[in-house]
Amino acid sequence: MRLRLTATLLAFATTVAFAADAPQKVKSMQEIIDAAPATDWRTLDPANTLYMQLATGRVVIELAPDFAPEHIANIRTLAKEGYWNDLAIIRSQDNYVVQWGDPNSDDAAKKKPLGTAKPKLPVEFERKAKGVPFVRLPDRDGWAPEVGFSGGFPAARDPKANKAWLAHCYGMVGAGRDVAADSSDGSSLYVVTGQSPRMLDRNITLVGRVVQGIELLSILPRGTAALGFYEKPEQHVPIKAITLASEVPEAERAQLQLLRTDSQTFTTLVESRRNRRDEWYKRPSGHIDLCNVPLPVRAAPSATKPAG
Amino acid sequence: MRLRLTATLLAFATTVAFAADAPQKVKSMQEIIDAAPATDWRTLDPANTLYMQLATGRVVIELAPDFAPEHIANIRTLAKEGYWNDLAIIRSQDNYVVQWGDPNSDDAAKKKPLGTAKPKLPVEFERKAKGVPFVRLPDRDGWAPEVGFSGGFPAARDPKANKAWLAHCYGMVGAGRDVAADSSDGSSLYVVTGQSPRMLDRNITLVGRVVQGIELLSILPRGTAALGFYEKPEQHVPIKAITLASEVPEAERAQLQLLRTDSQTFTTLVESRRNRRDEWYKRPSGHIDLCNVPLPVRAAPSATKPAG
Repeated sequence: MRLRLTATLLAFATTVAFAADAPQKVKSMQEIIDAAPATDWRTLDPANTLYMQLATGRVVIELAPDFAPEHIANIRTLAKEGYWNDLAIIRSQDNYVVQWGDPNSDDAAKKKPLGTAKPKLPVEFERKAKGVPFVRLPDRDGWAPEVGFSGGFPAARDPKANKAWLAHCYGMVGAGRDVAADSSDGSSLYVVTGQSPRMLDRNITLVGRVVQGIELLSILPRGTAALGFYEKPEQHVPIKAITLASEVPEAERAQLQLLRTDSQTFTTLVESRRNRRDEWYKRPSGHIDLCNVPLPVRAAPSATKPAG
Repeated sequence: MRLRLTATLLAFATTVAFAADAPQKVKSMQEIIDAAPATDWRTLDPANTLYMQLATGRVVIELAPDFAPEHIANIRTLAKEGYWNDLAIIRSQDNYVVQWGDPNSDDAAKKKPLGTAKPKLPVEFERKAKGVPFVRLPDRDGWAPEVGFSGGFPAARDPKANKAWLAHCYGMVGAGRDVAADSSDGSSLYVVTGQSPRMLDRNITLVGRVVQGIELLSILPRGTAALGFYEKPEQHVPIKAITLASEVPEAERAQLQLLRTDSQTFTTLVESRRNRRDEWYKRPSGHIDLCNVPLPVRAAPSATKPAG
């Protein structure tokens, strides 16, 4: 029934198909992932993981200290000191971003103090390409000389200029700023919830990616003020807490693993998405955009069961 | 207060900025749009406009008969005969699509009859490029030899093969199908609500675009069954009616105009988005992806006021 239903409508992604004129079985995305050896998975580092607790559940964010070390140090401090606890999501702009922070950030008398976090940070729009892992996607990109993945994050690179930077794909998290390039302090964060706004690349500091729970943010009602800000304080979506995973007892941590983007399994997966060979697709694209590549996450196999 | 608030967070899009070292004023998107002569706007054709009525409001869809005439003829018939009335939205997959139709489409005994609509339609994945208007975007694209706009829709073209087709950008509406290429009849429709799934281009028939009300669909809870289908019938989102605008009394029609994609204003707008020159942006991209180009819609100026 499930198969009939999905097939009758818009079949996609996970079906296993046999080509009519060839007995060769095409592996589905799930089959490729399921066949990965345990070493192709990495466990989230609690020191680089944030939990955003909403009334509806928990959003898990992986931080990217290789690209924005100063921002991440500040974000760790803000989380440890409970800065975001009882603050709010203040903006949801359709096909663009959801943003959170202090609704009173413009009011010197009312705004929440940053605690021991730094009030001023350096610009971290890009870094030296040398020394950063980079698995290049073979496909051309309009925004950057090279695109690919660095430690699990979608990224771009300019080898001539020796620069690398993170890319604004769906789920990427950045630090809101004012007109001055160096005006972000990590206290106001946003997540991409629409078509990749790559024009923001190297114009604002990206700090990580939502690896679980994005659907708690992407379904929020769109704000009706300019830029999708909520018009009234009562429309703000309360944040119970944002916590660093390393500050949470181990039993309460999200036990998640991410497929290593430098693994053979990931390379196989990307190729299977560049050319969709299941029977539903009549014309494989021979191409994929950086932000169309899935980045698989799974529950960590429990210690009592064999991994994989 | 508004300006301070937005500036402190993630400034974007509509601000008017003066470059610090140059007195030249940079026109905002809104200023470019506001300066358009009345002739740069076109009014929605009621014969090519669908209204989807939900409990939360009305979604307006413009149909694309230049690209999928047989599907659109069937969709007009289905709408006129009230096919979708009291049917439902049955799927919302995060960062992908929302889909609607008959929840019982797989059950021959229960499914709603198509009425006088055709049960079988030809494949309309692409058409001859010759004879179709096409305003080319100067930017390179990974999925097609050329991309641009045709009559207000994002589109692609292969001049050598003399083929043109619509592109799967955010808001585009298509006709769900089974494994067979010619298995769509227009009764099950989907809308793109995430990162452009361009791998679907020329693999399924696109029929139009949501021009107003997409936020009524994009915020729907994500379905938890495979592919984002809702697991239980009570999770389905009821559709009150889908109506062809020409069947609705004129006073009840959405009075909307769309900026002509073959106008000088649109060309100016695209260039202003390819290279963001307002003060917030530190590095103009010199590029835009097809699916990042905004397609402005406005309320039609009332007959009693001068247009423009």
